[in-house]
Amino acid sequence: MSKLRVGIIGAAGYTGAELIRLIDAHPYLELKFVAARENAGQRLDQVIRSTQGVDGLGELMLERFEEGDALQIGKKIDVAFTALPHAASARLGGALLDAGVQVVDLSADFRLKDQALYEQWYGQHPRPELIPQAVYGLPELYRSKLQGAQLIAGPGCYPTSAILPLAPLIKGDLIELDQPLIVDGKSGLSGAGRKPAQGTLFAESGESMRAYKVAGQHRHTPEMEQELSVLGSQDWKVLFTPQLAPMIRGILTTTYARVKAGVSAAQCREAARDLLQGPLISILPEDTLPDTLHVRGSGRAQIAYAIDDRTGLVLSIAAIDNLARGASSQALAAFNISRDYEEATGIPRLAQYP
Amino acid sequence: MSKLRVGIIGAAGYTGAELIRLIDAHPYLELKFVAARENAGQRLDQVIRSTQGVDGLGELMLERFEEGDALQIGKKIDVAFTALPHAASARLGGALLDAGVQVVDLSADFRLKDQALYEQWYGQHPRPELIPQAVYGLPELYRSKLQGAQLIAGPGCYPTSAILPLAPLIKGDLIELDQPLIVDGKSGLSGAGRKPAQGTLFAESGESMRAYKVAGQHRHTPEMEQELSVLGSQDWKVLFTPQLAPMIRGILTTTYARVKAGVSAAQCREAARDLLQGPLISILPEDTLPDTLHVRGSGRAQIAYAIDDRTGLVLSIAAIDNLARGASSQALAAFNISRDYEEATGIPRLAQYP
Amino acid sequence: MSKLRVGIIGAAGYTGAELIRLIDAHPYLELKFVAARENAGQRLDQVIRSTQGVDGLGELMLERFEEGDALQIGKKIDVAFTALPHAASARLGGALLDAGVQVVDLSADFRLKDQALYEQWYGQHPRPELIPQAVYGLPELYRSKLQGAQLIAGPGCYPTSAILPLAPLIKGDLIELDQPLIVDGKSGLSGAGRKPAQGTLFAESGESMRAYKVAGQHRHTPEMEQELSVLGSQDWKVLFTPQLAPMIRGILTTTYARVKAGVSAAQCREAARDLLQGPLISILPEDTLPDTLHVRGSGRAQIAYAIDDRTGLVLSIAAIDNLARGASSQALAAFNISRDYEEATGIPRLAQYP
Amino acid sequence: MSKLRVGIIGAAGYTGAELIRLIDAHPYLELKFVAARENAGQRLDQVIRSTQGVDGLGELMLERFEEGDALQIGKKIDVAFTALPHAASARLGGALLDAGVQVVDLSADFRLKDQALYEQWYGQHPRPELIPQAVYGLPELYRSKLQGAQLIAGPGCYPTSAILPLAPLIKGDLIELDQPLIVDGKSGLSGAGRKPAQGTLFAESGESMRAYKVAGQHRHTPEMEQELSVLGSQDWKVLFTPQLAPMIRGILTTTYARVKAGVSAAQCREAARDLLQGPLISILPEDTLPDTLHVRGSGRAQIAYAIDDRTGLVLSIAAIDNLARGASSQALAAFNISRDYEEATGIPRLAQYP
Repeated sequence: MSKLRVGIIGAAGYTGAELIRLIDAHPYLELKFVAARENAGQRLDQVIRSTQGVDGLGELMLERFEEGDALQIGKKIDVAFTALPHAASARLGGALLDAGVQVVDLSADFRLKDQALYEQWYGQHPRPELIPQAVYGLPELYRSKLQGAQLIAGPGCYPTSAILPLAPLIKGDLIELDQPLIVDGKSGLSGAGRKPAQGTLFAESGESMRAYKVAGQHRHTPEMEQELSVLGSQDWKVLFTPQLAPMIRGILTTTYARVKAGVSAAQCREAARDLLQGPLISILPEDTLPDTLHVRGSGRAQIAYAIDDRTGLVLSIAAIDNLARGASSQALAAFNISRDYEEATGIPRLAQYP
Repeated sequence: MSKLRVGIIGAAGYTGAELIRLIDAHPYLELKFVAARENAGQRLDQVIRSTQGVDGLGELMLERFEEGDALQIGKKIDVAFTALPHAASARLGGALLDAGVQVVDLSADFRLKDQALYEQWYGQHPRPELIPQAVYGLPELYRSKLQGAQLIAGPGCYPTSAILPLAPLIKGDLIELDQPLIVDGKSGLSGAGRKPAQGTLFAESGESMRAYKVAGQHRHTPEMEQELSVLGSQDWKVLFTPQLAPMIRGILTTTYARVKAGVSAAQCREAARDLLQGPLISILPEDTLPDTLHVRGSGRAQIAYAIDDRTGLVLSIAAIDNLARGASSQALAAFNISRDYEEATGIPRLAQYP
Repeated sequence: MSKLRVGIIGAAGYTGAELIRLIDAHPYLELKFVAARENAGQRLDQVIRSTQGVDGLGELMLERFEEGDALQIGKKIDVAFTALPHAASARLGGALLDAGVQVVDLSADFRLKDQALYEQWYGQHPRPELIPQAVYGLPELYRSKLQGAQLIAGPGCYPTSAILPLAPLIKGDLIELDQPLIVDGKSGLSGAGRKPAQGTLFAESGESMRAYKVAGQHRHTPEMEQELSVLGSQDWKVLFTPQLAPMIRGILTTTYARVKAGVSAAQCREAARDLLQGPLISILPEDTLPDTLHVRGSGRAQIAYAIDDRTGLVLSIAAIDNLARGASSQALAAFNISRDYEEATGIPRLAQYP
Repeated sequence: MSKLRVGIIGAAGYTGAELIRLIDAHPYLELKFVAARENAGQRLDQVIRSTQGVDGLGELMLERFEEGDALQIGKKIDVAFTALPHAASARLGGALLDAGVQVVDLSADFRLKDQALYEQWYGQHPRPELIPQAVYGLPELYRSKLQGAQLIAGPGCYPTSAILPLAPLIKGDLIELDQPLIVDGKSGLSGAGRKPAQGTLFAESGESMRAYKVAGQHRHTPEMEQELSVLGSQDWKVLFTPQLAPMIRGILTTTYARVKAGVSAAQCREAARDLLQGPLISILPEDTLPDTLHVRGSGRAQIAYAIDDRTGLVLSIAAIDNLARGASSQALAAFNISRDYEEATGIPRLAQYP
């Protein structure tokens, strides 16, 4: 089988670097084009230093890619992974799509189905007409729609960690309606990106645990609400608290909801095993709890449930690697499905432990 | 003024080490006796290596202290800080109290007022008759009762971080009754103690965020419920989720409750400024959020509030140093009050930043 | 091609866990047997939690393996990776070798060629007669001898990081004779193993940089001296300083030697490119320096040289992942060579960055 | 005693923050003026967030200080600590000195006695005529000269960690002449400053150990050479290798020199105890080694020696806190001496452990 030719637009950030690692090990893909606006003209191994000395990779030249280049670049690649700031991603990804290239977008541009909602959170959408054809790239919930998809919207990191465990509770009718869902998320620092900032220096973050954009200010809130609401009979409201923890990778998310009377944790696990199937998810047995260390570098999500009878609450806990399952490896899994490859092709199923 | 003579029973653990640091810098105290069962016969600087070369401190000998020694030791010290496992703390602290020594206990032994509840969580209480005279050492809520107290029960680390921000909401009648309180706590690894264990090795914890003892299994739950319930008109139920974050010191706790209609975050801050007064607490202004890094090594607690109108929830966020405000410096502040010293005597009011 | 059947003896430690990750992704190997004395009877996913939910892996049962079981186990596996404490490794690995199994040993038991020297550092050798047939598994220096090897001695982590950069200087006759070599090594905490110990708790190690076993006390000293001495015309003496750095994985080693007059850093790099060839080594260009982050999780070693004309010293800097290039992936590369597979088969050539 | 009035010029960086912590706890000092060019107009608690809620401190306004303001500011303060980039520090500190203010400079501007050497490394010196009157602020070596000093040059962090252990070896004539000194230093990330940079982000540094400015490129080299050369009979050459370790604070420095025949480690310790006296230094006993964790936040330096008979080398190991003993607390100790206060006044003698 001849390999598909891949381009990465936005190769100099952390999700770009993770894509390079994954695509390099993927048996059916070969990396043909890497673009990074601010590093154009540099060798890849000057920017992603782990590619130093890696034959055929480190010496790739980073290019500058503009809309006007889409036709020409479209002849060189079959699929593009766009890992750019919002708006730029839709604009450049849209141009490639127009040129016949399959696009897997890691930005927020094609996640929200409601253009008005998008524009309320992100500003004007450059290609709103493309929104309807985008498929949300969460394998466990969109596997059949992803088959043959030409435009894939890679889910956000926090939303992945909240939607996976909450979906079975909603779909299985296990929690009370008309109650808010609470999502308490903790992310490693790579989630804040590679751009220099005082707050994410090692010296500022190394012994720091802190919340930010609380009480409905974080843009991942509408994404969670959209995906949870399509699963059931009502529009769900989410209170999302993002927090930074002093680790490089990983998200641990704890959710709280009011459980229906009589529902057991075993039933929650059962509902999760029914709904969430595939090679990259673990519904943990009773008395085992997720740990970001145990999924680091892998595409795996770990999920557990517990019920507190005294308060009538069900809590779920999920652990993912924010750059892998929360971004690049999940985008690759969705792409694999779109091409009818085995879902986990090229994706480590085992974490780097320790 | 001649200095009071201090003994630390349980000097080899992390709260013991923190007590040594604080007492060494306290103008009215002098350390006269250090006991540590497993390290008896060693010099202090072999066990707490930071005391190496510190005149008059590093060369102290660690002793073994038993109940039968209480009368003799009671002649050498005026106050004892007991930092032992539960039951042992009550037993040895009780013996010193009998011998006329003031006792500040950092274990859980004198926190719960209901003996039956204690025994449900911790097993048999060795000195239940002492429970009524113990004063809970949270300065902001028990300042007047602490004056002259002979037996002080130092609050737990997680409870400190939950009670402080929730107390004003309850006392101020700002949240709905008959709703559970959710306490989502994240602690640094020093909270797990100095005893070797696989799970708290650096290699197992360094990139790990994980929950443990969820859904009502953690012993700090009844302590939170007791202290919150005495403040208002009902018994509160708490769902507490403890989690470990890869840092040495610090607790960040986020709480969720249903806010009464029309209550604003400004009102929550106002209620907190009214109820929580003193030199070691900061109610943060709007748009500033707590950070464990900014309280590390100090006795300070930072507290913030936010309200999410869409879900009708109020969230509080608190940051403390688990070994300082969550244990040793809070115990010292309570002691200072008991002796009519200025509350923050010997307690760093500024964190070690960064 | 039918897959070779693999056993891991000592599967519950960190090098064992890394072997599991690598073997699981290796196209020609399948894991058939996992032994771990203290965890015998447990499922693998209870002990190596990252295998939870991984089909065909997590449900493997850990067994207890004794010498007397060698014949029986020998029928089930073609190759054994032994990752045990010294002496135990030679004893059990020796028994498997007797039973016709190829053995790749990750302990120190077959590294030293001089039995007396081994016994001076490690105590009695249980199978000294096997020493001569063992091949030292450093691919760049022993590639031809490794072909067909039945007993491979996986190099130590620190020695790998010192021998690789120093070998070209010696072989190329670029440094002065009769001068000691200084090896200043810094290792992450996983190098200290998975056994609980106070000194390697997160709280003791998280902000700690410290030396241990200095001035010739560390057992890796004779291994370095042996391998460097066989390369040239004299016996080299090494002063090795091991130090612990607060990271999970990684070794950064800096060496100092007296350079011959007129030798340039470019000549050192040239000598290194001549001697050290293969897919898993990067001789860095001028002005680029190694970084443990850029090799983490990969089998790659990064090496750089600099010369200080003022002092007449040449320094080399090497970065490796102590569990990968310093243990498990290097053992696998040596095995690959022994079987005439491509050297990097199943070994990530790209680090997990960040 | 009325308190001396203090100004900090450059209060927004890490050494400035550490000065604030120390001065706030100093019994004879009161902070009257804080300047920070880029943060002028902000409250101190917006910039140094640990001062939030600290009475009389958090509400201080950061000002912009220019040379022309020196006369006016000189009326408000008795002593200024200047913690600015080089050249700016000499320019503004010089202006304050002209206005009669005592100046303790934490930059490199007054460390090198040879103007030409300074200008080779740092560019033009704005106030070379002040160099002769500056006293190098290393208490153990300059205690008598510091008495009454009006201009103090605070030593660099790495030089402190190298000069302290090497000085007794040189002064005691314990090492061979005509041999280079090797200084292998490892620093925490706070040493890289608070300015945002990609390389010091948490995600880039958290599992990274790396060298930089090797082979004589680092500016601390001439400072070490100057201070070591004045102690003995020859000009010493130093090869200095700076390296970054993933911790917030701390420097561990290992040095290598050729020992004179017959010299023992006990003699080295003896020489160190003779030369290095005072309340903030620990010469560790045999078999105890320095650890950055055990000096963190304190003004203490820990020093140990070992001799390797096989190679004829002596190694010294020193641990300091780079922001405390390596910058702010050492500057304060030098100031204390200049004013005839007890040397450790206001300086924690015990580390924050853990």
